[in-house]
Amino acid sequence: MTSSFFKRIGIVGRFDRKNVADTLDRLLQYLERRGVSVTLDERSATSLQGVRFPVSLLEDLGRSSDLVIILGGDGTLLHASRVLAPQGVPLIGINLGQLGFLTDIPAQSMEQMLGQVLDGEYIEEKRALLSARIARKNEEWVGGIQALNDVVLTKGARGSMIDLEVFVDGRFVYNLRADGLIVATPTGSTAYALSSGGPIVHPGLGALLLVPICPHTLSNRPVVLSDSSQVEVILKKGEGAFVNFDVQEQMMLSPGDRMTVGLAGNSVRLLHPPGHNYFAMLREKLRWGTQL
Amino acid sequence: MTSSFFKRIGIVGRFDRKNVADTLDRLLQYLERRGVSVTLDERSATSLQGVRFPVSLLEDLGRSSDLVIILGGDGTLLHASRVLAPQGVPLIGINLGQLGFLTDIPAQSMEQMLGQVLDGEYIEEKRALLSARIARKNEEWVGGIQALNDVVLTKGARGSMIDLEVFVDGRFVYNLRADGLIVATPTGSTAYALSSGGPIVHPGLGALLLVPICPHTLSNRPVVLSDSSQVEVILKKGEGAFVNFDVQEQMMLSPGDRMTVGLAGNSVRLLHPPGHNYFAMLREKLRWGTQL
Amino acid sequence: MTSSFFKRIGIVGRFDRKNVADTLDRLLQYLERRGVSVTLDERSATSLQGVRFPVSLLEDLGRSSDLVIILGGDGTLLHASRVLAPQGVPLIGINLGQLGFLTDIPAQSMEQMLGQVLDGEYIEEKRALLSARIARKNEEWVGGIQALNDVVLTKGARGSMIDLEVFVDGRFVYNLRADGLIVATPTGSTAYALSSGGPIVHPGLGALLLVPICPHTLSNRPVVLSDSSQVEVILKKGEGAFVNFDVQEQMMLSPGDRMTVGLAGNSVRLLHPPGHNYFAMLREKLRWGTQL
Amino acid sequence: MTSSFFKRIGIVGRFDRKNVADTLDRLLQYLERRGVSVTLDERSATSLQGVRFPVSLLEDLGRSSDLVIILGGDGTLLHASRVLAPQGVPLIGINLGQLGFLTDIPAQSMEQMLGQVLDGEYIEEKRALLSARIARKNEEWVGGIQALNDVVLTKGARGSMIDLEVFVDGRFVYNLRADGLIVATPTGSTAYALSSGGPIVHPGLGALLLVPICPHTLSNRPVVLSDSSQVEVILKKGEGAFVNFDVQEQMMLSPGDRMTVGLAGNSVRLLHPPGHNYFAMLREKLRWGTQL
Repeated sequence: MTSSFFKRIGIVGRFDRKNVADTLDRLLQYLERRGVSVTLDERSATSLQGVRFPVSLLEDLGRSSDLVIILGGDGTLLHASRVLAPQGVPLIGINLGQLGFLTDIPAQSMEQMLGQVLDGEYIEEKRALLSARIARKNEEWVGGIQALNDVVLTKGARGSMIDLEVFVDGRFVYNLRADGLIVATPTGSTAYALSSGGPIVHPGLGALLLVPICPHTLSNRPVVLSDSSQVEVILKKGEGAFVNFDVQEQMMLSPGDRMTVGLAGNSVRLLHPPGHNYFAMLREKLRWGTQL
Repeated sequence: MTSSFFKRIGIVGRFDRKNVADTLDRLLQYLERRGVSVTLDERSATSLQGVRFPVSLLEDLGRSSDLVIILGGDGTLLHASRVLAPQGVPLIGINLGQLGFLTDIPAQSMEQMLGQVLDGEYIEEKRALLSARIARKNEEWVGGIQALNDVVLTKGARGSMIDLEVFVDGRFVYNLRADGLIVATPTGSTAYALSSGGPIVHPGLGALLLVPICPHTLSNRPVVLSDSSQVEVILKKGEGAFVNFDVQEQMMLSPGDRMTVGLAGNSVRLLHPPGHNYFAMLREKLRWGTQL
Repeated sequence: MTSSFFKRIGIVGRFDRKNVADTLDRLLQYLERRGVSVTLDERSATSLQGVRFPVSLLEDLGRSSDLVIILGGDGTLLHASRVLAPQGVPLIGINLGQLGFLTDIPAQSMEQMLGQVLDGEYIEEKRALLSARIARKNEEWVGGIQALNDVVLTKGARGSMIDLEVFVDGRFVYNLRADGLIVATPTGSTAYALSSGGPIVHPGLGALLLVPICPHTLSNRPVVLSDSSQVEVILKKGEGAFVNFDVQEQMMLSPGDRMTVGLAGNSVRLLHPPGHNYFAMLREKLRWGTQL
Repeated sequence: MTSSFFKRIGIVGRFDRKNVADTLDRLLQYLERRGVSVTLDERSATSLQGVRFPVSLLEDLGRSSDLVIILGGDGTLLHASRVLAPQGVPLIGINLGQLGFLTDIPAQSMEQMLGQVLDGEYIEEKRALLSARIARKNEEWVGGIQALNDVVLTKGARGSMIDLEVFVDGRFVYNLRADGLIVATPTGSTAYALSSGGPIVHPGLGALLLVPICPHTLSNRPVVLSDSSQVEVILKKGEGAFVNFDVQEQMMLSPGDRMTVGLAGNSVRLLHPPGHNYFAMLREKLRWGTQL
């Protein structure tokens, strides 16, 4: 039995999927050998039979763990990070499909790379979260949802464009007739925003991105702002429009609704094994080819 | 009273709008002076009080008119053209807002320009219509809706991308993870397809356009095909996806549904006053500036 | 010895390159076994020692051959096709690097695929060529160069944008301040025009493409025209600008020069082995992935 | 005679142009009324006859002035700022054509707006400059030129793409086959980079932009980096390529040359009249329309 830099490990994942369950077995065996204590996310564990490990609500896992391992793809990590961010626990992702932008440990080399992290050899990044609040007419405020990638105001099922009025720090920026508007973090710049024509923003830069989706005005362009900016979007026209968070949680909007987006107080502590290289990951995901 | 090349005139429009109603008055006075007979679209006329003119269902207006005048914007003309195309009656649009791509007679110079057309001086264009049919599993076929601009297969309200499989003339083209896919005519190339990054296709070219909406694969690009092509799209994944026609009529789709789009047998006869210039219209609408 | 549908074969290529020379040996042995007569392009053959085959100027190869085989990449085929088009001889390309858009027989399966073609089993496409003529002030006309991909008017070495005035069929289209303007065939739509934001145009469509390079006016967009169009471009401002043909041959321009581009009288007869699939080729070249 | 916050004013401009000369007269009369001392840039003044004011080399104007007024467009300000930045003198631009991104005082309201600035009421921005150095094989270093907008490595007159290898902070980013690569400041994000598909970067953000020009790899995208990054570009292939600075000064490159670009030690102090609004300027320049 060896010692570990992180003593208490939480695990979250889509355990109901066959390949995840197999990798989970390997992971649990490895962690037992390392002599660390393990707690499973309760909801993740419902599909498991005869679990030998304690379970805990995801909300509590952050408090009772020194490190949370995410088993799955970027989507699973996005979900976990929104819930766990307030507790400040570091996260690390083991990827089971193709390399993810966020979950960068391949399952096949899991023991070796995770080993280094448990030995205290790792790279830590702080990834900013967005927070949005929505005001409806009678001063009633709704809100509180956070996002690691993006907050997206988008047209509803009717298919016709919506009209938005956009302000930054109280200053009018533009009227937008479009399919929608993405407010993204640098983390989210390689997600939906990229498909909508946005630039790649290095996660080391303190920035917010405004990326219109299919804008009617052809000279509209993505705008990169300082992350101290407050973005305000008023839905002028568009029945059935909605706002979504990391394309996972959503809320209906009505014309007149006013959404304000800015950095959340929290950020996510994302760990990588030593040697992690943001550009290498970009090249592989975007098929840019290799150095000749 | 003067004679007219077109004897029986149908009129369609959003008469419930104040500025349309005023222009309608002017138009009716002018047409009376020209000595032509006038029939109003029944639905358009419901908002009018004390109508002195016969009314007719839009479906029948095509048979009983030599020319149908559309009073309003491109949206009104799109709707009318889908209904009237089978009757082969020519259409002409009087624009009440800013210049439209399709309705190119400005209201202020309506009498003069329409006068030329009634004198038999005009430019006639044939604009192709698309027709789509949709197959669901048990061989039950739904379909029959046509489109002058575009047939759009698009994600539903959930906000996450859909997966499509695309074939042209029976040959596999690509898998597409995207917000959706636009199949457009040259007429539609300046509508939604343009906002989604598609090229402008001259209406004189017999072409179909495939324009992906926010494609996940960054090397995906719009494709221009011969208008004899049959485009087949299978919805592989995407609850709540739907197909819409000219962004005006729509139908829900389910995974497994197969849509086939090609040229409709009909086309729309669109008239313009003499001197009509496609490129001048593009320059004005897209603010390309003028010749120095 | 077997008979062949094509009796007299011409061969063109970059024989000075080691991998081309090796493939040439294999090809010559194969063609001898097939009992066809072989003539080599004289310039291609200069690097060969002890050539056992007759040589001929490329200009004459078209007249003395029933089929010309191009050994190399798309660049070699582009060059040969401009020279050979007037003689109407069919061309087929054997690719030595990665799959080309035009040279689609991989060297490793050369004998098998070429065998089918020599047996008379092949797909023939007609690919349109562009022709440009340039007028300078004193009515002196320069011109006559053709292009299979594109005619590109572009800024010179100074690096600042040029100003162009563009007409189609005598009608003013737009003023363009840009790095340049590409007039492309459907064949050229997957070449430089694609990097500049143009659409993919199926080679079965009779179209011309206008693609601006880095236009200053952000609402400028690629335009697809009928291939019966005459495109006229006047260089208003831009010392040292030039026009190039297939990015292989070029000519300096001066402000005031007027270039007219349209379809050439000739087209290229391009052969493919049976089973050739345009979309499969696109998918492989553009890494769109495979059908799942 | 009134007092002024800035006592010694330098003036730079294209005085050889008629409209500049007229505005210069008005400006000089106004400055005399304000009782400030005036020095003209020597080169700017060569076209003037009977100059009543002292002249000075542009290089010295920074030391002998409290404020330098630029009369002309953004190009004139770019040139002056590269020369004057080391002296730390603030600059302000009076625009004579259409509104500039940098020169934002319209000539017609010059006296009123400049009056506020001379009264000490103004907004000051620091705009970062780029600095590049170029290494050729035998360790000989060339360099020292700065840029306010961009450093652009671009193909030469031959027209074929160049091959670049790009590193950020010593880490390999990508191989690029393209017309070129733009390294831009936020100031430059609305110049050439915007025409090449780059995003708009707010000048308040400490960022560098990498924008490829017509990249051959279709999944290549603009990248936004922290302004502490060092960008290294090696020209692998491309006879006659060159690097230019603000599209005004340039230097030939040879394959093997290595260029390193990062923030210069200096930045430009750019003054605006009170009420200056970056987004309003964007809207006007890019024709985004006004708030409804």
